[in-house]
Amino acid sequence: KKRFNIALLPGDGIGPEVISVAKNVLQQAGSLEGLEFDFQEMPVGGAALDLVGVPLPEESFKAAKESDAILLGAIGGYKWDNNEKHLRPEMALFYLRRDLKVFANLRPASVLPQLVDASTLKREVAEGVDMMIVRELTGGIYFGEPRGIKINENGEEVGFNTEFYAAHEIDRIARVAFETARKRRGKLCSVDKANVLDASILWRKRVTALASEYPDVELSHMYVDNAAMQLIRDPKQFDTIVTNNIFGDILSDEASMITGSIGMLPSASLGVSGPGLFEPIHGSAPDIAGQDKANPLATILSAAMLLKYGLGEEKAAKRIEDAVLDTLNKGFRTGDIYSPGNKLVGCKEMGAEVLKSV
Amino acid sequence: KKRFNIALLPGDGIGPEVISVAKNVLQQAGSLEGLEFDFQEMPVGGAALDLVGVPLPEESFKAAKESDAILLGAIGGYKWDNNEKHLRPEMALFYLRRDLKVFANLRPASVLPQLVDASTLKREVAEGVDMMIVRELTGGIYFGEPRGIKINENGEEVGFNTEFYAAHEIDRIARVAFETARKRRGKLCSVDKANVLDASILWRKRVTALASEYPDVELSHMYVDNAAMQLIRDPKQFDTIVTNNIFGDILSDEASMITGSIGMLPSASLGVSGPGLFEPIHGSAPDIAGQDKANPLATILSAAMLLKYGLGEEKAAKRIEDAVLDTLNKGFRTGDIYSPGNKLVGCKEMGAEVLKSV
Ligand SMILES: CC(C)[C@H](C(=O)O)[C@@H](O)C(=O)O
Ligand SMILES: CC(C)[C@H](C(=O)O)[C@@H](O)C(=O)O
Repeated sequence: KKRFNIALLPGDGIGPEVISVAKNVLQQAGSLEGLEFDFQEMPVGGAALDLVGVPLPEESFKAAKESDAILLGAIGGYKWDNNEKHLRPEMALFYLRRDLKVFANLRPASVLPQLVDASTLKREVAEGVDMMIVRELTGGIYFGEPRGIKINENGEEVGFNTEFYAAHEIDRIARVAFETARKRRGKLCSVDKANVLDASILWRKRVTALASEYPDVELSHMYVDNAAMQLIRDPKQFDTIVTNNIFGDILSDEASMITGSIGMLPSASLGVSGPGLFEPIHGSAPDIAGQDKANPLATILSAAMLLKYGLGEEKAAKRIEDAVLDTLNKGFRTGDIYSPGNKLVGCKEMGAEVLKSV
Repeated sequence: KKRFNIALLPGDGIGPEVISVAKNVLQQAGSLEGLEFDFQEMPVGGAALDLVGVPLPEESFKAAKESDAILLGAIGGYKWDNNEKHLRPEMALFYLRRDLKVFANLRPASVLPQLVDASTLKREVAEGVDMMIVRELTGGIYFGEPRGIKINENGEEVGFNTEFYAAHEIDRIARVAFETARKRRGKLCSVDKANVLDASILWRKRVTALASEYPDVELSHMYVDNAAMQLIRDPKQFDTIVTNNIFGDILSDEASMITGSIGMLPSASLGVSGPGLFEPIHGSAPDIAGQDKANPLATILSAAMLLKYGLGEEKAAKRIEDAVLDTLNKGFRTGDIYSPGNKLVGCKEMGAEVLKSV
């Protein structure tokens, strides 16, 4: 039997509920494929702030770092919204991303036939959307130096950040994107703002230079403002998108809303070696926390990504993906994806149904 | 009779066609309100590159600078896409914005009842959308220093830009936004990324501090990734949005596509004093240039903004706005907004119809 250490970081809000459900599904899918898991659950975010006063306690980071893969719930909440910057729950995410060096953030956005009507886009526009956004996660304006707020020579307050990319940072995320596109429909769109930003000019140059190593992938370039439009005009045109940290933040959220079911969307953050970080793209939804209303499918599908991308266990991953589709086909829906004619269930019941189908 | 000097900068692609039509409409609306215009037409962008080798010739800038208001067509085209940076048509836009100090970019995005079906959003989501995006236009990462591409100490190529805002830059755009919201439905949403960027933390602080001077305006804050989602989920929630240069670039294009008719959307760029710059938000559309297919309404409505915001001539502006609605009500449509049951017309005929109604 293969054994894996899995770090569970439930975090805040609905995090604990969806993690507890996803853990059971992960365990079941694994055991049917001869995998055993040792789970270690650790506090992060607001939960950790309340417990020990820092967003990412050393023991939590250590458990994550030494695991084979990490499943995270969600982070943040109104309660800590006015904390000083270094005491904000979100800092846990930055530290995790940075210190685990998970530079490649994979965010699929697809519209399932069962959920087409959840989109605010017209049926004919939303139907069949199936894209993967590859977002650079450990560089760019999120981490660039210098940054800060200071008083300048005129006695005026100024705020500044640095968008920064080194060639190797662009190359490694571009390679992940080319490989991803190759396993999908072979189309890669690199999004930048090369008509304005120097960092984007370098980005486009490096991505373009790599294209000859991937002759089976069709590369195109698009400005970020146009991409924000095209996602709405005709999202089906996209297969794989690669872009920098901040543009990826904006466009992946936009793309997720196009599917209309952000309660369904998982993500994976991967480095060169070491554990990957897997989490739903939705937030901690404090307003429905603890009410058994959350949709656990995004976290369950994140567990599938954990199996596939984190542990290389494609069969067990497929079990979970199929079980989710099966459960949707049977008509089970949490509130966020409910439409008349289906069965409204809570977080736990949805989890139990998926478990039956695994 | 009042006389005004108007600089016409047709630019590239469909620019000359839409400017020529809009000029006639402007002249007519003005003359019915006792205004006279002296037009001076000057080359910018690719047209100027072809003519004299620079994107913004000194004489063109001088004519613009000394005018009472500037009407611009569109800039750019495939032909110059591989030019070196300082020889790209878009540079004309940067120089104009920077040197005219037009820091406030007003971009309305509304869905006309006549054109609701042009949106890819469901009718019930698109219907009634009516927002104004106030974008900071002369600061932020577009102009921040240091910027460039260089070889670092390890011999590696790196690209970088600086997001930079001084307090006064934030204050002046925030004031424009508060004033704008006050004249609309009294709701202002400031969009930033204050959970990540120092420049955004200062942004939020300054905008918040000004709120007490505008007690009649309801101020809210939203992260840019969430804003990109909310624009799709429920665009009607927005009245006035204020944001920085790069977020404004992305979100205003997204908002424009939500209306489904970017051939309809005008914009105004205003400074403290000196002429404002008025232009359609659409591009130069080189693929349909010279074929009399372009939709001139965005430029015609930009002429209305020119009258209203540039010259303070609200009556003449209203004439143009009403004439456009009238023409749409009569069923005239260019190809981009055509739907069965209406009359398909070209750029010139559309212009002639609006002219009749002025
Ligand atoms: C919470 C926030 C700091 C984070 C980000 O901007 O990266 C989130 O939006 C995300 O996309 O994971
Ligand atoms: C052409 C381009 C440089 C410009 C910008 O990014 O500002 C355009 O997208 C706009 O929004 O006016």
